[in-house]
Amino acid sequence: MTTEAKWQRFMELAGELSDLSRAAAVLGWDQQTYMPPGGGEARAQQRATLQRVIHERLTGAEVGELLADLEAQGAAGDDPFRKAVLRETRRMYDQAVKIPADLAAEFVRVTSVAMNAWARAREEGDFDLFRPHLERIVELTCERADALGYTTDRYDALLDLYEPGATRDEVNRIFDGLRGTLIPLLHELLPKLGEVDDGPFRRELARESQMAFVNEVIAQIGFDYNRGRMDLSAHPFTISFSPNDVRLTTRIDPNDLRMALYSAIHEAGHGMYEQGIPARWERTPVGAVPSLGLHESQSRMWENVIGRSREFWAFFLPKLRQAFPGEFDGVDVDAVYRAVNRVEPSYIRTEADEVTYNLHIMIRYELEQALVDGSLAVADLPGAWDAKMEEYLTVRPRSVREGVLQDVHWSMGSIGYFPTYSLGTILAVQLFEAACKEHPEIPSEIAAGNFEPVRHWMQRNVYDQACLYTPKELLEKVTGTGYDPEPYLAYIKGKYGELYGL
Amino acid sequence: MTTEAKWQRFMELAGELSDLSRAAAVLGWDQQTYMPPGGGEARAQQRATLQRVIHERLTGAEVGELLADLEAQGAAGDDPFRKAVLRETRRMYDQAVKIPADLAAEFVRVTSVAMNAWARAREEGDFDLFRPHLERIVELTCERADALGYTTDRYDALLDLYEPGATRDEVNRIFDGLRGTLIPLLHELLPKLGEVDDGPFRRELARESQMAFVNEVIAQIGFDYNRGRMDLSAHPFTISFSPNDVRLTTRIDPNDLRMALYSAIHEAGHGMYEQGIPARWERTPVGAVPSLGLHESQSRMWENVIGRSREFWAFFLPKLRQAFPGEFDGVDVDAVYRAVNRVEPSYIRTEADEVTYNLHIMIRYELEQALVDGSLAVADLPGAWDAKMEEYLTVRPRSVREGVLQDVHWSMGSIGYFPTYSLGTILAVQLFEAACKEHPEIPSEIAAGNFEPVRHWMQRNVYDQACLYTPKELLEKVTGTGYDPEPYLAYIKGKYGELYGL
Repeated sequence: MTTEAKWQRFMELAGELSDLSRAAAVLGWDQQTYMPPGGGEARAQQRATLQRVIHERLTGAEVGELLADLEAQGAAGDDPFRKAVLRETRRMYDQAVKIPADLAAEFVRVTSVAMNAWARAREEGDFDLFRPHLERIVELTCERADALGYTTDRYDALLDLYEPGATRDEVNRIFDGLRGTLIPLLHELLPKLGEVDDGPFRRELARESQMAFVNEVIAQIGFDYNRGRMDLSAHPFTISFSPNDVRLTTRIDPNDLRMALYSAIHEAGHGMYEQGIPARWERTPVGAVPSLGLHESQSRMWENVIGRSREFWAFFLPKLRQAFPGEFDGVDVDAVYRAVNRVEPSYIRTEADEVTYNLHIMIRYELEQALVDGSLAVADLPGAWDAKMEEYLTVRPRSVREGVLQDVHWSMGSIGYFPTYSLGTILAVQLFEAACKEHPEIPSEIAAGNFEPVRHWMQRNVYDQACLYTPKELLEKVTGTGYDPEPYLAYIKGKYGELYGL
Repeated sequence: MTTEAKWQRFMELAGELSDLSRAAAVLGWDQQTYMPPGGGEARAQQRATLQRVIHERLTGAEVGELLADLEAQGAAGDDPFRKAVLRETRRMYDQAVKIPADLAAEFVRVTSVAMNAWARAREEGDFDLFRPHLERIVELTCERADALGYTTDRYDALLDLYEPGATRDEVNRIFDGLRGTLIPLLHELLPKLGEVDDGPFRRELARESQMAFVNEVIAQIGFDYNRGRMDLSAHPFTISFSPNDVRLTTRIDPNDLRMALYSAIHEAGHGMYEQGIPARWERTPVGAVPSLGLHESQSRMWENVIGRSREFWAFFLPKLRQAFPGEFDGVDVDAVYRAVNRVEPSYIRTEADEVTYNLHIMIRYELEQALVDGSLAVADLPGAWDAKMEEYLTVRPRSVREGVLQDVHWSMGSIGYFPTYSLGTILAVQLFEAACKEHPEIPSEIAAGNFEPVRHWMQRNVYDQACLYTPKELLEKVTGTGYDPEPYLAYIKGKYGELYGL
């Protein structure tokens, strides 16, 4: 077999693996959008079988041998695409083969049961229903981390699953920066919280009108409805079946338009990234978003940096008035701007404002590390949670329901995932500022309803690169630095200092 | 390996094959309901890969060896379930291995291209755009039939794909019966067609109100929305992901409620059959509907025998009036009954009434046999089509669009499929009458809105059997005969004789 024939076969196998993963994604999307109540059990089996087939094919002799062979021959040469194909396949392959089959199966079994136990525990407000499951998940997570391997820190192996190449040391430095600024800022704001009013959005609006307006906004900022769609689900998410078929979901609060609107803008940020992945790399391991932090940079940038800006509302307020006749007549841009940026320490992460959001993440980040390094027992988690909430956010949850049990992530075994949300928020500002540096007209164009300049910059600098580089290489190229919290902190201090007259 | 261990492994493999086929079905459903325009190309690749994986696993050494081994050992003994598992797997396995891989691949390639060519040819009303594709399909269909094998007649091998065990001789006898009665009946009706008026349904009704009413009807007759749902698509269809997750679609004509209503009742007939397949046989080859004719018996029975009966409208007319205030005030049960049973020879099969429907099928059945046995060239097909339309239906299509190009089936390579539609219409009456013989109260219960007695009989006698028996064995058990057109013909003569005062 010539080297070219090997490449060809290797890319065929990669294409099949991609097809099967996308097929599994369609099943997941349907489950969260349209599947009737009775469909859950059969769907779980269909997804499990598909995952098993993917795992078998990825770890089968053919992929492993071709991969080793192409690597050993240096067959990628200086071709950046081929280098990236080998790097990304190696990463997936190693993750798949390093974890023993028994451990992988046990992890799937335990987390499936744990997700149901979590839902029931949350429903009944009883942490003990979830405790033994989380204890087992922590044990298995440590076994997984050890199987995957790490240089200095077990948590690094987990982080790397979601943010390739990131380390605990590095993330610690970022959170130190966030902690040092955000907590004092929150304390400065506390006596002044009542000065910003979100009354304009506290009104009942018809669901159909909400969806029509939200669809208009999403289309205007650049989500392409010929290559995607938006539906409703209990928890908003984005999933891609191809750059030409990207699905968003949102959810509606009949009494607060901000729920549907900002969930949708957030997901459209993810969605435009997925739609922007170059079509020529479809069905290859390079045609993907390289890390969750980068993914979240786009959702957070569109949701917050752009979607909660004065410029955004300068353009959209007239549209808002048209969409809801009479409802926003007495409201000016400044009032809307204030209403969508109101700060309020709360129990629930997903409803947190820009100032407090990262404090929610920090709590989870610190606690999950303590669980993994054994310094915190699962039984003591609810108390530790409440103490940290009080320390960082000045509020104490009234129940485990709105406290330690609010997030699904740990029940799914996603430990090491939360910090990527914070990386996303700081990257959002780094990338937006890099774009504005090159195109200072971006804010005024946004105020005129032209989102093309910012989108085009993201396309060229971020989306077009897909997985050609590692997340760190890509960031270095685009921002000249790595993850840097300073631009984000300056943005927060400037924006909220002005808003609250500090 | 003990025999029991072999069974266990065999059922595991069967379960996986079932999961993968159901996964492929989810991708197909999404494609026809919610997929955005851009998604088609990636979806085609995902489905092709999934089909290849299914084919590889089905024809792999493990399934073939276990199957041969269990058969040779007589391992099913007298257990009807295990006997059916071996019979159904043998059927699927043989179909998959008998067709050489090259021929299978060529068939997929040619039909994919042909479906697009057909759509364009129909759009432009130009048969020649489709002709070379159909020529190639006929050639490949003959090669497939020869690979599959047959005793006396090549067409039998094709029929058997859709209606296991049925033969051309047998189906010819049925169509002889239909031809001998339906054509004279139609000629008797021709001078009197104007005596039945469908004016009550020729009015514009809001789409939302149509869907609300249709959903109410479907739920009332027994489609379980906890284990299924209904959406919209260009061509109505039913697909099952599990007895607990069955999807229907319908379509709306804003100016004629009958379109959405009867499409939905038809699909709900298919859907209730799928929901009625015993859950204990899920993920086994026995947990399925045994033939297309049997499947169609349920859709036609609910749509026509029940849904176009006086009893049905005795119950639903008040609901219809409530759903569309003022629209049906001056209309009584008899007027609705007449309007939904109006006879009119037309060009389009899918819009045909009960009297003319089987004549449309007969034309296709006769022509596809002539294509396969070589007595008709594809180039002469449009002329032959029009001549038969005039002979049987007294109308001549004004274009190939509403003539020979109206159906997608041949472009998909589905030759041998059409007669199952007629088998379904005659079985519909055979099964309904068998139920009424045991439960003479069925019609009066329907008039009272109680569909439980008829549904329960179908459940016990048909759905509960799934693929435990061959279609013919099942029919023999349930009706005491095989496919028999006489009850259907008596039903048609009685119903339409009365309606048109013959």
